[in-house]
Parts: sequence; C-alpha cells; structure tokens
Amino acid sequence: MTDTTAILAKADENFSASLERLFDLVRIPSISTDPAYKADCSKAAEWLTAALNELGFEATIRDTPGHPMVVAHHAADKPDAPHVLFYGHYDVQPVDPLNLWENDPFSPAVKELEPGRQVITGRGTADDKGQLMTFVEACRAYKDAKGGLPIRITILFEGEEESGSPSLKPFLEANADELKAEFAMVCDTGMWDRETPAIAATLRGLLGEEIIVKAADRDLHSGLFGGAAANPIHILSDILAGLHDETGRVTVPGFYEGVEETPENIKASWETLGRGADGFLGEVGLSVPSGEKGRSVLELTWARPTAEVNGIIGGYTGEGFKTVIAAQASAKVSFRLVGEQDPAKIRESFRAYVRSKIPADCSVEFHEHGASPAILLGYDSDFLTKAKAALSDEWPKPAVVVGMGGSIPIVGDFQKMLGMDSLMVGFGLVDDRIHSPNEKYELASFQKGIRSWIRIIAALAV
Amino acid sequence: MTDTTAILAKADENFSASLERLFDLVRIPSISTDPAYKADCSKAAEWLTAALNELGFEATIRDTPGHPMVVAHHAADKPDAPHVLFYGHYDVQPVDPLNLWENDPFSPAVKELEPGRQVITGRGTADDKGQLMTFVEACRAYKDAKGGLPIRITILFEGEEESGSPSLKPFLEANADELKAEFAMVCDTGMWDRETPAIAATLRGLLGEEIIVKAADRDLHSGLFGGAAANPIHILSDILAGLHDETGRVTVPGFYEGVEETPENIKASWETLGRGADGFLGEVGLSVPSGEKGRSVLELTWARPTAEVNGIIGGYTGEGFKTVIAAQASAKVSFRLVGEQDPAKIRESFRAYVRSKIPADCSVEFHEHGASPAILLGYDSDFLTKAKAALSDEWPKPAVVVGMGGSIPIVGDFQKMLGMDSLMVGFGLVDDRIHSPNEKYELASFQKGIRSWIRIIAALAV
Repeated sequence: MTDTTAILAKADENFSASLERLFDLVRIPSISTDPAYKADCSKAAEWLTAALNELGFEATIRDTPGHPMVVAHHAADKPDAPHVLFYGHYDVQPVDPLNLWENDPFSPAVKELEPGRQVITGRGTADDKGQLMTFVEACRAYKDAKGGLPIRITILFEGEEESGSPSLKPFLEANADELKAEFAMVCDTGMWDRETPAIAATLRGLLGEEIIVKAADRDLHSGLFGGAAANPIHILSDILAGLHDETGRVTVPGFYEGVEETPENIKASWETLGRGADGFLGEVGLSVPSGEKGRSVLELTWARPTAEVNGIIGGYTGEGFKTVIAAQASAKVSFRLVGEQDPAKIRESFRAYVRSKIPADCSVEFHEHGASPAILLGYDSDFLTKAKAALSDEWPKPAVVVGMGGSIPIVGDFQKMLGMDSLMVGFGLVDDRIHSPNEKYELASFQKGIRSWIRIIAALAV
Repeated sequence: MTDTTAILAKADENFSASLERLFDLVRIPSISTDPAYKADCSKAAEWLTAALNELGFEATIRDTPGHPMVVAHHAADKPDAPHVLFYGHYDVQPVDPLNLWENDPFSPAVKELEPGRQVITGRGTADDKGQLMTFVEACRAYKDAKGGLPIRITILFEGEEESGSPSLKPFLEANADELKAEFAMVCDTGMWDRETPAIAATLRGLLGEEIIVKAADRDLHSGLFGGAAANPIHILSDILAGLHDETGRVTVPGFYEGVEETPENIKASWETLGRGADGFLGEVGLSVPSGEKGRSVLELTWARPTAEVNGIIGGYTGEGFKTVIAAQASAKVSFRLVGEQDPAKIRESFRAYVRSKIPADCSVEFHEHGASPAILLGYDSDFLTKAKAALSDEWPKPAVVVGMGGSIPIVGDFQKMLGMDSLMVGFGLVDDRIHSPNEKYELASFQKGIRSWIRIIAALAV
C-alpha cells in the first residue's frame, strides 16, 4: 500500500494555487451552445492543454467540426501499471437569466454559505470545471511529491457536453486505439451527501415508444355515435392501465427477462442511507411509493425497470367542453431498463401486447424513440472496490455504491465503442444548481476531491 | 275521420305558389350570427308575420335583445279542439366558403339531382325555412279548402337558433301563458330515409365532467423518479379504463338506475330499418359496435346510456420525446343519459368512484360541464300515435319512431318551462348538407311535408 501522506500534504500545501488555477479556467466563458463563445471554448481547450503540458503530460488540442477536444497522455512509473482514461468536459451551460446571479458567473469567488461551509461560485464550478480540476490537481500533487505517476493516464476533455456532444462518437471512433484504456474514470456525478462519497455502478437503459390508436376516419359527434363507435381514448386507456398489474409489476410478456435481484449487501447499504420515501418523495410533494410493491424507493429508481407514460393526448383538450369521439389518440411510453433486458425484444413484446388490445376495425401506429440497454458496471469490480476503499479513507462516512435512474451517454459510448467500463466518481451535491443561476461547488468538494483522486490513483497502482 | 282529399288536392294545386313563397323567404339572407345581416333577420320576421296575417293568423313581431320572434295565433273551428304550439326558426347559418356553392345560396332554384329526383337549393332550404314553410303552407291549403282550421294553433318562429338562442328562455318565461299549449310540434328533424318518415320520441341527456389528477408538485424526470413517484397519467388511465366492464356496461355505481328496456315492439321496428353496424358504422370507417354487448347500434345510440371520454391530455405531447412524469393529467368525460337517470346522482357517484382511485398522496379536481336529464316523449302518447298513422298514410313506408342520440335544446325548454312535450316531425335527409355549402331540400320533402301536416292536423282534430 502506497503511503499517500506526503502527496496529500503536498495537495494541501498547493491548495490555494490549485484554487487560483480553477478560477482562471472558470473565468473563460466557454458556453458551447452559443456560437458567440466559440473562441472562448477554444481558449479553455488551450488553457487546459498548456496546464497539462506544464504538468508533464503530452497534451494536444484536436480539432473537430465543433469545439476542440483535449487529449493528454502520461506514462506510469513502472511498465505493467494499469492504464486509465479520465474524462471531463470544459464547456458550460449558458448563464441567463443573468439578473438572478448574485455574483458574476465568470468572476469566481469563495463565499461563506454558513459558518464553516465555504463554496466556490461561478458557472462551471460544479459542472464540470471544478470536477475535472480535482483530477488535474491530484496529478500535480502526485508529481510534485513523487516525481511521477504510478499508473498510465490518458485524459480526454470534451467541449460539447452541454450541447449534445455531436463530435464525440466520430472522435472516439477515429481515435479508438489512442483512447482505449483498461477502464475510464468519469468525473461528472455527485456525492450521496456532504459526508458520504458515492460511486455509480448501474445506469438504467431507456426504450421509447409512441403509439397512435386510430378508430373512425373522422372525429364523431358523441351524441350520434356514442355507445356504438369505438373511442380511441378508451382503447388507449385500457392499454395503458393494463401495463401494470396490481402489485405494480410491468405486464409486458418477457419484460423481466434479464432482470436480476440486487445483491443483498448492496440493498442493505442503501437501507443505511436513510433516504426513504419521506425524503425522496417528500421533496416533490409525494409520500407513497408507486411502482413495484415491497421495494424501497432507492431500489425502485436505481435497480428496477419501469414503464412510464410520459405523455398522452386525444380528443378535445381546450377550454370548456366538446362532445366529440376522437378519430385518434396517442401516448408516449418509456421503459427504464436494468440488467440484461433486451430493448429490441421488449419493444416487440410491447407492440404485440398493444396490438392484442386493438379492436378489429381500429388500427395502431408505432414510432420509435430510442433504445439503449442498461449499463452494468458491476458492484464488485477490482477498480470499484479499490476506489471505494480509497474514498472511504478520505471522507467522514464510507463510500456508497449507488445506481443511477437516468443515463450518462458517455459511459455507454465508452462501453460500446471502446469496450471499457467506467468508474463514476464525482463530488457534486444536489444543491449545486448546475444549469441554473448561482452555480457553486463546495470548497470541501474541491479540496477533498483532489485528495480523493490521489488516494484512488495510489490504490489503483497496487 | 276527416276526409282530407279536398285539402290535399288544394295543396297540390297551390304547390307552385307555395314554392314561390318559399323562394321569397330563402332570398332573405337572415344569417343570425353575423351582425351585418341584422336587418335581413328582421326582414324575414316581417315577411313571415305578413304571410301569417294574410292567412288569417293574428301574427305579431316581438322584439328581443337579439333578433325578433314571430308569434301567431289561430283559433279552431270548434271550442274544445286541441291547442298546439308549432316551432320553427327563420335564421340560417353563414354561407362561407362561398366559392364551394354551385348556385348562389340566396338565389333558390329547383335542380334535378338524378332522373326523377328534384331538390330545392339554397341556404336555409332544409334548415329550417323549407321545414317551417311545410306547416305554413299546410295551414294555407287547409283554410283554402275548409275555410278554417280544426285545431287551435299558436306559432313561434325564432331568429336565433343558429346562434345559441340567447333570447329564447327569457322570452318563453315572459310569455309562458300565451305560448303554452297541449303539446308542441317541432319541425327541425329528418326522415329515416327518402321513403320512411320518422318521429323522434326520446332524446338522450348529457352530463359533462372534467377531472384533473394531480400528483407531484412539479414535472419530474422519469429517470430519477420513474418507478417510485406517482404518475397521474397512469392513475387517469386506470380510472378511465375502469369506467366500462368487459361487457361494455358502465361501472359507475347506480348508473343504470332509471334505465328501462325499450319496448319490444319499438326494438322490433328498429330491426326492420336495416341499418345495422355495417351501414351506421361503415360510413365512418368502422364496423364493430363498441359499448354494451348484444344490442344493435340503433339501440346503443338511441336508447342506451353511455360514458365517453371526449378528451385527454397530460405530460409531453409535442414532437419527439421527453422523459417526464407529469405533475397532472386531465380528461373530459361525458355521459349520455336515458330514461329517468338522475344527472346529479350520477355526478356524485362518478366523483366517488374517481376519488376511490386516487392514491393518498395525490389529489383530484372536478369541473362541471352541464347536466341535463334525458327527454322521454313516450312511444305511445295519443298525439304521437295519431301523427304516426297520418305520416304512414302519406309516405311509401310506415312512419318509424326513433330515438335521438344528441339533444335538441328547445324540446327540453318546452318541457321544463312550459310543461309540454313535443312532437318532433321533420322531412330533412341526412344528405341535405345543412350548415355546409350546397344545402338543399328535396322537392318531395317540401310537397309531401305540406301534405303530411295536413294529414296530422286533421288527425289531431279527431
């Protein structure tokens, strides 16, 4: 086990300089979605390239049809050390409405939120400049203290994450050999709470379907036809109501193929987090978990598949009343997938279920809206186990392995295109107001984030 | 039994003059909804008043806040004759798009549709000028042949039927004593087909409810909350799907209280009409009767109550896809009522049913959209029986007693405000294109309509 004491001390010694460097990067308004800031995006890429080169990385700017990528390499001290790819993004969200900001978004400052709690304010401090700089500054402290790095590191900084990453897939494809490592480290997620670091180990997949039920060839008067003519809203309601059984399980045949139970120790660790229905649902004015009975809200949102109707429309929906039987009605339905669920098979099974509910004189039309399987990073991979121990050493409470209900596309891209899993570690908090006015990053997230990466790098080298 | 031979002969002898008079009335563009035609509405009222006075009625124009009413009285030959109120409306629909008319809408003409089938073209020929003139011309032939009328007749012509009849209820209320008769005759409906006259004996009632299901206090991300947070579209679908059981019956408790089976002889007469699902539903691209199993489409639409969802909306309904769990979803639901069904009781029962399906942490809001009970005119009243026989004498096929799926507000107003039932007889056809370009009225409808009223008046006098 590497003794990290000296490296951590170096990081603390350097911390005010680390903070100044983060401020320099935040001052560059690299808003990727607004063409007016194109030069600023390039400037941020250049700033990072220079910083990495200064650190001893071999860093280059790579042009794309959009904003440039930064790619950097650093060898390990010893030949058979692991090789990791670190990913972050230097672009930020727009800042309007500007008048809601208490401080200029591009003039970062340290502010005391409450006694003993300091935050760094500014656009991009949490998403993602502060986060990626924890890693860069960890490498700096490591090199300053040890003269080298114990693992081989490739860095990829993107400048289009906030605008849909149009150049990312072609770039990964064109540079697969250069970028491929044993696994990736993605620093764009959050802590469980201010004392508890988190590693995301699963991401649910997503399957989107739009169904349009068609009945008569025109809208009908419900006085003349009501009681005899098929009503597509009734048919659709029946289809949607039938999607779940009385225990909250999804009824689509074969839906649960490939769904495994979460390991008991993981579920037990979630129980200790003390975030039951009251906390989770209470934030949005609810209290009763819907969905599958007998499972906690964390399990329901992290580790169980779902069917949700995201939108429905049919007939007259304006002010007042119109006694019409609509010619058609439609709904958008999405399925969150886990484990080995196969989106293509589920789509077919769902469509067969829907078709079985359509009367002989009616019809249904389907439109696809994406299909991606769940991403399983495993609860007990070697690198996750090491990172978990390292994080637990740094923070007041042990690290927790969590699931993510939504998706992080880069993780899927790395898995599909480069064949590597990701270690998702980040130090954001839910109240960081990313994408909103008054974005902030905890000063403790930045400092202990740097220290966390030092510990993780050391742990991975062993 | 009055011998009508001479009166019918007089009507035929007068027919070309009757047609000229109808043309005169149609030439007045009495479009009630367009203020530009206000003077023309008054002109039509004056024209009718003059025509009725010339005929020996005591006719007057009555001003209202809108267009004037025409009220006329004519005594019977003998003191204890029945007293009837005849209702029609002289206003017409707008004519746009004008370019779709083959003939000028206010230059009526007789046109041959196919060999042996002539029609009168022009706005208002069928709705309702041609129809009301069948009655006026019947009275004229009667008086010409007999010197008087065998029943006491009050006539009410309205000029706002096509624009919501805002002045009607206050006028009925203010003039109830003058207008009240034993029953009303309303000439604003149609024939079953070109050979079969029809009398409408029932009109379904209508109850409208809007329900808004509310869950979280904001729209949620379905990745983060899906599987744990209540989805109002699911709750609403479940409510709506549960409104009917597998036999198509409405499940709202107590819904069928006051619903009686249609008499077997009436149902048998409907069977002979040969308008099954193929014809009725085939016109709009359907073929399978929905709703209650084991009943004909005519029974379903004329004599059975329904629950129909007229509109539904919730969540994201634009282009593409958005993985949102909506904060609320809403539906507009209407019930068609028959027999003695009580709208107020059904509303309460429906609301209780809906509330029973709302999870503890969600809520529901209701909005009323009208409630009117069914109108039952009876299948075997004395006046209906007489009119049915009279119509059967005139037309190739016997008259049929039908139901109406929708509502005719004037009939409810007469029942509620003047305490009298209506005899609904009219000679329109489904292809008359009322409210559309190229409105027409069959020449046979006009001539045999006049003759029908002569027979009915004679029959009612006995």
